[in-house]
Amino acid sequence: MLKAFTALALAATISIPALAQQPMALRDMGSFHVGGRAVEISGQPVKEIQRVAGGPMSKLDLNGVYTAEQMYAQYFLVQNPKSQWPVLMWHGGGLTGATYETTPDGREGWRDMLIRKGWDVYVTDATERGRSGFASPLIWKDDPVFLTASDPWERFRIGPGAGSWNKDPALRKLLPGNQFPIEAYDNFLKQIVPRWLSTDRAIIDAYVALIDKVCPCIVLAHSQGGHFAFRAIEQRPDKVKALVSVEPAASPDVSKAKALKDVPMLLVYGDYIEQDPRWVDYRKNALAYAAEMKSAGGSFDVVNLPEQGIKGNSHMLMMDKNNREILEVIDKWMVAKGLAQR
Amino acid sequence: MLKAFTALALAATISIPALAQQPMALRDMGSFHVGGRAVEISGQPVKEIQRVAGGPMSKLDLNGVYTAEQMYAQYFLVQNPKSQWPVLMWHGGGLTGATYETTPDGREGWRDMLIRKGWDVYVTDATERGRSGFASPLIWKDDPVFLTASDPWERFRIGPGAGSWNKDPALRKLLPGNQFPIEAYDNFLKQIVPRWLSTDRAIIDAYVALIDKVCPCIVLAHSQGGHFAFRAIEQRPDKVKALVSVEPAASPDVSKAKALKDVPMLLVYGDYIEQDPRWVDYRKNALAYAAEMKSAGGSFDVVNLPEQGIKGNSHMLMMDKNNREILEVIDKWMVAKGLAQR
Repeated sequence: MLKAFTALALAATISIPALAQQPMALRDMGSFHVGGRAVEISGQPVKEIQRVAGGPMSKLDLNGVYTAEQMYAQYFLVQNPKSQWPVLMWHGGGLTGATYETTPDGREGWRDMLIRKGWDVYVTDATERGRSGFASPLIWKDDPVFLTASDPWERFRIGPGAGSWNKDPALRKLLPGNQFPIEAYDNFLKQIVPRWLSTDRAIIDAYVALIDKVCPCIVLAHSQGGHFAFRAIEQRPDKVKALVSVEPAASPDVSKAKALKDVPMLLVYGDYIEQDPRWVDYRKNALAYAAEMKSAGGSFDVVNLPEQGIKGNSHMLMMDKNNREILEVIDKWMVAKGLAQR
Repeated sequence: MLKAFTALALAATISIPALAQQPMALRDMGSFHVGGRAVEISGQPVKEIQRVAGGPMSKLDLNGVYTAEQMYAQYFLVQNPKSQWPVLMWHGGGLTGATYETTPDGREGWRDMLIRKGWDVYVTDATERGRSGFASPLIWKDDPVFLTASDPWERFRIGPGAGSWNKDPALRKLLPGNQFPIEAYDNFLKQIVPRWLSTDRAIIDAYVALIDKVCPCIVLAHSQGGHFAFRAIEQRPDKVKALVSVEPAASPDVSKAKALKDVPMLLVYGDYIEQDPRWVDYRKNALAYAAEMKSAGGSFDVVNLPEQGIKGNSHMLMMDKNNREILEVIDKWMVAKGLAQR
């Protein structure tokens, strides 16, 4: 049964912020795709379709060569970079590079904060999402997964777990002191895109292709992006100067930690971790990895934000109301690690 | 039968251009989503899935409220705009806003040319594509359409129609004098995303929502985007100061032309139109529309580029080697129409 209603369409319009701070001076910006492969399909029947309403009929022949598994990257290069190394910004599962742009309630996002601080940035849409496109069911056999409105609220530590979201915004339960801009939650939902569960290998291959194209660099990864970052850096430890992993939804391979000892790492965790066994497990694993890397002489810092007095952060830290405060922690760490070198 | 090969993966890497011209000074940039609706699904079975390889199992319940049919817009606001009205850049079918960014062979695209000329710009991914995401098959019942590598080559006036593309680049046939950067054709294919044939109404609704949010404005639309532009402007004739329609894949409704007489229009056509009955039909219809609009005192200009000595243009004019020359024609027209007003 399908029932449409208009709550979302009627949600308060979030206006674009007026002139924010100083102008941004860019020496260049643009985009490209990397990676991908050609796949040939044969033996499929030919269809007749109308491509534009009112337009002529034309043949649709599914047989042929398809382009699949490429990845989109958009870059912003500042006029006077403070580092010779760009920051690659990798988003989490079911999301796109929009994660790092304007927050759902219209505040400045981490991308522009980094640019204003003098970092060159590359923002990607992982293979299968956003401007990377996705492959035909003739190539990827599994169905994509679509998230409901309740899912991020309950899994991303905005509300206190299952049952905390409600169709009626007034009845939604919130973790006490939570910093997520809940008045714009419906705008956040508009950023979510379908995901596949079979595409990890393709995504990692594309990230490695990106590293080969634009690094040496720093990788800043969030959630599922953190999983891909560990896997990609294992393949290119010499090309990544540092990893900032924001709440990685990853169980990094501890046996490979020593091989990455020359890649300084910062892990950042928000609030309420102890209330969700999933995040407790992820963090425990990351700490074992950290211990192994340190035993080999590596640099591995873990910041639990509440211990620094930064409280109330959901899993979407880059959108939370105190997102600027967290970005400051990351920028300071990168500078302290000597990454702001020309 | 599936057969993968590596021609695409091995295609020559296109490097990012070095410092291009003067720096771009932006007073702001960012993104947002507009439009969309909430759809409630019920009666579906609950599944167990693993969201991250190696991670814990979690429930996937398809029942619930979904966000569908929203549209993504990314904006770039220049430090000293030459107009009070931004240019909204709407792409064609099976594509995203990447259309207007760096060309497949790494040259500057129309977005940045307009920014350098002092126009504020908004680049969208139409509903269903790119960072707009797409809806579950529980909401959109039809299958998306995936284009093969041969399709744009043969339909976008790069090669001379059916049979002109070949897996072997050396055997591809080209329309004489064609300006498409064919050495980067495989990069262009990476920009192509799946499309649905049932979503016109949703897309037009989202464009109208965008107009309501950011206009008055100028709309620059390509191909299928031109179809949506006519439909959206019919609903908001008072909010659109001008329409630049680049090879609209549209049969605009002539009976509505008079109502749009206060929206100056420019139509731009590339080369080889006469060799493809589809484009001959589209242009004939557009000329009938123009005549009707002019009879009501409207301003309607049609530029057939070959008549101005600009030859060899494919359907993807913004990517062709002479893309700058065509953008100059558009910029001059907008200025001549008094649109560069503060």
